[in-house]
Amino acid sequence: MSRVAYVNGQYVPHAEAAVHVEDRGYQFADGVYEVIAVTRGALVDEEPHLVRLERSLSELRIAAPMGRPALRHVMREVIRRNRVADGIIYLQMTRGVAPRDHAFPAGAETSVVMTARRTRPPNPAVIRDGVKVITIPDIRWERCDIKSVALLPNCLGKQQAREAGAYEAWQVDARDGTVTEGTSTNAWIVTRDGEVVTRRADHAILNGITRIALVDIIAGQQGLKLVERPFTVEEAKNAREAFLTSTTSFVTPIVRIDGATVGDGKPGPVTKGLREAYLAHMAEEAGTA
Amino acid sequence: MSRVAYVNGQYVPHAEAAVHVEDRGYQFADGVYEVIAVTRGALVDEEPHLVRLERSLSELRIAAPMGRPALRHVMREVIRRNRVADGIIYLQMTRGVAPRDHAFPAGAETSVVMTARRTRPPNPAVIRDGVKVITIPDIRWERCDIKSVALLPNCLGKQQAREAGAYEAWQVDARDGTVTEGTSTNAWIVTRDGEVVTRRADHAILNGITRIALVDIIAGQQGLKLVERPFTVEEAKNAREAFLTSTTSFVTPIVRIDGATVGDGKPGPVTKGLREAYLAHMAEEAGTA
Repeated sequence: MSRVAYVNGQYVPHAEAAVHVEDRGYQFADGVYEVIAVTRGALVDEEPHLVRLERSLSELRIAAPMGRPALRHVMREVIRRNRVADGIIYLQMTRGVAPRDHAFPAGAETSVVMTARRTRPPNPAVIRDGVKVITIPDIRWERCDIKSVALLPNCLGKQQAREAGAYEAWQVDARDGTVTEGTSTNAWIVTRDGEVVTRRADHAILNGITRIALVDIIAGQQGLKLVERPFTVEEAKNAREAFLTSTTSFVTPIVRIDGATVGDGKPGPVTKGLREAYLAHMAEEAGTA
Repeated sequence: MSRVAYVNGQYVPHAEAAVHVEDRGYQFADGVYEVIAVTRGALVDEEPHLVRLERSLSELRIAAPMGRPALRHVMREVIRRNRVADGIIYLQMTRGVAPRDHAFPAGAETSVVMTARRTRPPNPAVIRDGVKVITIPDIRWERCDIKSVALLPNCLGKQQAREAGAYEAWQVDARDGTVTEGTSTNAWIVTRDGEVVTRRADHAILNGITRIALVDIIAGQQGLKLVERPFTVEEAKNAREAFLTSTTSFVTPIVRIDGATVGDGKPGPVTKGLREAYLAHMAEEAGTA
C-alpha cells in the first residue's frame, strides 16, 4: 500500500512529503504536534487532543492554520487514504517558512503536516510481564506543558532507556528528587495505601490525553482514590504498583525501576483494572463498545 | 540572482530546498548547526567552527556525514554558487530520516543542509549608539553547550526582546540571578576595575566562536584582564561597559539593561577597542589585513 501524507494543503506520496529547509520547525523547533490513536478507523479522544493542540499553538502564538471542522476533515481524509483501521495519526504545525531569524517572522503561514500509519497491537508479553524503567535527570526546558517538537532531550533519554534494556526513562527533577514524567509517557504509582498518584499537570510535564482520560476513569470508579502530587524515585521503588500511560502505550505496567522490583515484580491489580477500563474507553470512542 | 542550497549531496534552487517530513530535525529537533561569517569570500574562523560542529555531533552521537576536506569543499561551493562576498553560510546536520520513534534509528544517514546569503553591513547607528537588552528567565535545557536546533526558547526570548524594543534578551539563571547568555549572543561586561568579564563556557552557554576569538584577543592585549565567571544582572547594570558578541553581531555595545543606563549611556572605550580588534581579526581571516 502506498502511504500518503498531507503537507500544506496537498495530499502527496509519503516518500515525497517534504518541507522547506527554512521551515521554522526544522531550523528552530518552532512548532507543535499531536499523536492521536486510531481505533477501528475512529480517532480516540479527538476533542481533548484538539483542545491541547490549540493551547500549544496559543502558548507559542502560532496562528491556527485552519478551523476545527477543516482539521477534522483533513485528519479523516489522511486516515482514509492510508487505510488505517488501528494505528495513529501524527499532526505537526510550525510557525512556517521564513528567512532564518530567531524572532517571529512577519507574514509566515503556519505549516501543517499530517501522516498516518498502522500500528501493531501491543506486545502481549509487555502487558503480561510489565516493563522496566530507568531514571535519569530531567534536563529539559521549563515549559514541558507545551507539546513542542523541541524533543531532543526526550530522544536522548529514550535512547538511554533502550540501551539499558528498559522500556522508558523516568525523568527526575534534580532539585527535589521527584519524577516529572517519562520521555514520551506520564508516570504513575499505586501507594501501599492504595492511592493512585501522578504528578499534577504543571509546567514540568505534558498533560497526556491518556492521563486525562485515566483521571476521569479513576474518578468514576468506586474504591479508587487519585492524588495529584509529585513522588520521588524512592517512593516509586517502594510503591505497590507503578505504570505509565501514553497515546501509544495506553496503560502499561512497570515492574522494575532502576533494577529495583516494584511490588511483587508482576503487574498489579489496580494497573490491570485501569488498563481494561482504558481499553473499554477506547472501544467506546470507536463506537464499538 | 537565484540562490542555491546544498541538500544531502545535491545543489538545488533555494525555493526547492526541502527535507523529508520525517527528518528528525523536523520532528525532534535532533540536529545541530553552525553559522559562519563570510568576509570577502573567506570563511571567518572556519577551523573553530568545524571543531565545535564535530563536538556537537559527537555529544549527540550523530555520525559525521563527511570528512573535513569534503565539508570545506561543499561550503566553498555553496558560497561560490551564491556569489556571497560578505554574508553568512548556514550548515545544519540532523540524525536523518526515519519512521518516527524517539530512540536513535538504526541505519539512518545524517542529513546535511547548507545555505548561504549576503548580509548587509551592520547598522552604523547600532555601533555608534549601542543597543538595549532586556533580561528574562533562562528556561532552556541543561545542555546549551551543544549547538542544537532545539531553539524554541531562544526564539521566544528574542521575540520578547523585539517587542520590548530591545536588540537582545539576556537570559538569567533563576537559581543564582546570574546572566547565562543572550538568545543568540554571548554576554560581557567591563567592571569598574576594568576587568572584562564573561561567563566561562559551562553547560549553560554556547561557547561562541566570536567569544573564543575575543578571549584570544584580550589575552594578547596589554592592559586588559579577562575574568571568566558568572555575573549578576545587578552587577551588569552597575558595570562600566557591557557588550555582546556573535558571528553576525561581532562585538556590539550595550548601553541599557532593562531600562537602566550602563556607564555614561554611550559605548565605552574597551568595547570599541575590542570591536576594532575583532574586525581586524576578521580582515586577517580574509587575508586582506
